[in-house]
Amino acid sequence: MKFSKDCILDHVAIAVNSLDKSQKIWEDMGLTFSSEREIVESQGVQTAFASMDENAHLELLCPYGETGPIHKFLEKKGEGIHHLCFKVPDIEAKCKELKDNGYILLNESPVEGANNCLVNFIHPKSTGGVLVEISQKRK
Amino acid sequence: MKFSKDCILDHVAIAVNSLDKSQKIWEDMGLTFSSEREIVESQGVQTAFASMDENAHLELLCPYGETGPIHKFLEKKGEGIHHLCFKVPDIEAKCKELKDNGYILLNESPVEGANNCLVNFIHPKSTGGVLVEISQKRK
Repeated sequence: MKFSKDCILDHVAIAVNSLDKSQKIWEDMGLTFSSEREIVESQGVQTAFASMDENAHLELLCPYGETGPIHKFLEKKGEGIHHLCFKVPDIEAKCKELKDNGYILLNESPVEGANNCLVNFIHPKSTGGVLVEISQKRK
Repeated sequence: MKFSKDCILDHVAIAVNSLDKSQKIWEDMGLTFSSEREIVESQGVQTAFASMDENAHLELLCPYGETGPIHKFLEKKGEGIHHLCFKVPDIEAKCKELKDNGYILLNESPVEGANNCLVNFIHPKSTGGVLVEISQKRK
């Protein structure tokens, strides 16, 4: 089965209470993590990454500070999968198309994400219970 | 970052109430589905597949009949991500290693899965809230 270059899995993000403990679990599964971790202060989150194949990463999201969406998610639901992220070739066009088709986007326009990307999120109400991030590398 | 051939993402599985409605949503995101659907009567489930990159698929899981784990999952939690599946080179050895390290496996030994694979599941209690399937193609 061919995959579409219009929508390629970039990462699966998991909300965790401790990067060290969760990294150990996923290393036991067989994944290898990057030694670099990233703090995104604006989102109140610290991240760790492992590759799952040529394209896709596992991203662990741990609260950094006492606020932010991951802190709230963990308080409400506990640890677990937080979102799926797909790379799209033209995020502005994709957002417009999705909005025109009735999908609820979390941001009016794409916003700055990690790794020099523009990102937006589609509300799980629109997607059958899955928070979806779409992402485009800045030129 | 290199990926490990000991643990490659095979699919992300999503529990859904209707294959047709959910397939439409993911097609709107940009994915292309296989025209073939599979019924696994022993699991009470019907599946639809789309490729997300060279390796990994999105798998929609819809109840087939009134029993089975997906029917129960939907009753309890509603639609959403059900599990992540990783390909491993030697499932017997991996199960032993995980058990020896205290991970809770759902089956004593690997069982027959879809697509001529041997599979086992790791309980979300062991993995930080994520049901993990491991899978090996039968020789």
